[in-house]
Amino acid sequence: MDKQIIIHDLQAIRAQSPLVHNITNYVVMNNTANALLAIGASPVMAHATEEMEEMTSIASALVLNIGTLSHHWVDAMLIAGRTAKKCGIPIVLDPVGAGATNYRTETCLLILENCKPDIIRGNGSEIMALVNSEIKTKGVDSSASSSSALDAAKYLAQKYSCVVSVSGAVDYTTDGTNVIECHNGVPLMAKVTGLGCTSSSLVAAFAAVNKNYLEATAAAMAIMGIAGEMASENSIGTGSMQMNFLDALTIISENDINQRLR
Amino acid sequence: MDKQIIIHDLQAIRAQSPLVHNITNYVVMNNTANALLAIGASPVMAHATEEMEEMTSIASALVLNIGTLSHHWVDAMLIAGRTAKKCGIPIVLDPVGAGATNYRTETCLLILENCKPDIIRGNGSEIMALVNSEIKTKGVDSSASSSSALDAAKYLAQKYSCVVSVSGAVDYTTDGTNVIECHNGVPLMAKVTGLGCTSSSLVAAFAAVNKNYLEATAAAMAIMGIAGEMASENSIGTGSMQMNFLDALTIISENDINQRLR
Amino acid sequence: MDKQIIIHDLQAIRAQSPLVHNITNYVVMNNTANALLAIGASPVMAHATEEMEEMTSIASALVLNIGTLSHHWVDAMLIAGRTAKKCGIPIVLDPVGAGATNYRTETCLLILENCKPDIIRGNGSEIMALVNSEIKTKGVDSSASSSSALDAAKYLAQKYSCVVSVSGAVDYTTDGTNVIECHNGVPLMAKVTGLGCTSSSLVAAFAAVNKNYLEATAAAMAIMGIAGEMASENSIGTGSMQMNFLDALTIISENDINQRLR
Repeated sequence: MDKQIIIHDLQAIRAQSPLVHNITNYVVMNNTANALLAIGASPVMAHATEEMEEMTSIASALVLNIGTLSHHWVDAMLIAGRTAKKCGIPIVLDPVGAGATNYRTETCLLILENCKPDIIRGNGSEIMALVNSEIKTKGVDSSASSSSALDAAKYLAQKYSCVVSVSGAVDYTTDGTNVIECHNGVPLMAKVTGLGCTSSSLVAAFAAVNKNYLEATAAAMAIMGIAGEMASENSIGTGSMQMNFLDALTIISENDINQRLR
Repeated sequence: MDKQIIIHDLQAIRAQSPLVHNITNYVVMNNTANALLAIGASPVMAHATEEMEEMTSIASALVLNIGTLSHHWVDAMLIAGRTAKKCGIPIVLDPVGAGATNYRTETCLLILENCKPDIIRGNGSEIMALVNSEIKTKGVDSSASSSSALDAAKYLAQKYSCVVSVSGAVDYTTDGTNVIECHNGVPLMAKVTGLGCTSSSLVAAFAAVNKNYLEATAAAMAIMGIAGEMASENSIGTGSMQMNFLDALTIISENDINQRLR
Repeated sequence: MDKQIIIHDLQAIRAQSPLVHNITNYVVMNNTANALLAIGASPVMAHATEEMEEMTSIASALVLNIGTLSHHWVDAMLIAGRTAKKCGIPIVLDPVGAGATNYRTETCLLILENCKPDIIRGNGSEIMALVNSEIKTKGVDSSASSSSALDAAKYLAQKYSCVVSVSGAVDYTTDGTNVIECHNGVPLMAKVTGLGCTSSSLVAAFAAVNKNYLEATAAAMAIMGIAGEMASENSIGTGSMQMNFLDALTIISENDINQRLR
């Protein structure tokens, strides 16, 4: 991954402060909003069908995250997704817990068919569940490695003409042909709830400023990994890790990217 | 602003621990509850129409915050607002994102007409949007300075016979005639999600112990600004700022107010 | 309380990483999920009736927490509770704010009758409200001591053939006959929102690995108290307390239990 792209995108986010519309789960809303603010973007959370078209229309990117879905929220996601498509705004789908229940898997497929997301970001189990409904996910944590899910990611990217990113020890981002690996990050990140969801929202912020979504997605994953490494150096457990991660996103610099990107 | 009023109100909150009923948004609920506990009040979050009258009846103040509204929640806000009015409990309206969508602006106007809030607290764009529906808000962040919104705040205060507070670099609190300025606070506060919402809930706690709502509101804004300054001195980024802010509310003393109020 | 049981259960959670299904309130979701991850369990939050049976079926324990209830959520709780019963999965009920409104008290009684929870964990006021509907709760904070609620806890445990735990300065856990006291913990814990809810979810994690629910519940309460003491030693206020508590759960060791259990 070219360091200059990451640095350029980060500077663009901080200069433009793109508005990212999140329809996301209750567990992570606070941290997601804080992560977007820390990196320099402007978050908004809204899910009422009455305001979906209007809210998505003023946004620069849309995140659809099914972590705590229910039918009113699915209605909102479909309206927001169609609006984003009409406006040419990038859509990021986070299929949280796909494979754990049919409702989650089917809702993702509904969104894939109706809204054509530009980017899908999930863990190994989730990405595999979108390809093969036989794959079972244990709740929202992955039981598959990211490398074993890479073939599924490529298949999905080709089928839906989108970018797919699989998070794990190594993050793989693919457009179906090319694959960009990210080797940054630390295991403690998986013990902080919602860092996967946070990465989906950062992907949206990067896609708002870089129309090459393969690059934008990989750049966001690199920032996640680098910030995670910076945060972990001063962390005792998951509480301080969660806090330090936001601090790292606030202060991450060109220098940090140059020195730490692996 | 008279320091003795702030100190007196703070001591009253810590002595009486007023119950503050919040109908607020998903993003900030945890931090709002923690801020109310830290300052010495007792928070409750509830939104089911089945329990609205009963819950509001036992509270000492009510917060209506439209940050992630939907129609069931608006129903609850109207019941709670009418109950608060009947019981003589102060109502604080936080018009989060008014101006971003018609649904938000219209819901605020519905609440203003039906519940007659005693206090409105928002950022510049939001306050202006309540006066002039032509004003556009970018999501939930302000695109107008607090000083440019002061005229709108005065107009609103007179129209609805309430106190209006506009947050920004300087916070202005007005009853339509008198204006109290608060010059405390630091820019990093705007980068932590929900500190505006937190200030609305602290305003409610202060209004629960001081029936002069102009004073109570300005005192709460002063506490916010001073706590923000105390917190920022040990903060690296927005993560530690969020944590240190709660610590500052826990430990803020008469001495801190005397030394720091500007 | 036998230290070896606590140590054994903690090791079992870290080895097995049981999936805990939480239908809980908006205020505490993030902290609850983080606490479960920190102790070594795997959290999932889900409330859509469409996926309740399937989600509860793959879980090792279920938490029903009525902190911000509404009727769709009650529907989900009843389906999840019946599914858990059918699958032999332990159910923990947290009657947040029972006694504050009839809706809360009645919903708890509905769950007690229909789902037969294995464990109830609440504060003094809440436990007393489940026995005597004349008892009034001030919002979600207790106005009764845990010792004054012990008789109510015993009565409730016998009536519903379950384990009941009352949190307070001393935590009492009873099966209606035996009582295990926990003397660990610090007053600052009551000033951090949702630590009661967190303890209910930890109880569920312990019940997932120890079928003696009296022991499992008391062990979880001991871990809460010890982690609270560890956290408070480095805390300035409630913000750092909330963070340090998660750190303590992450690092708590056999040694900490041996040295600190009172």
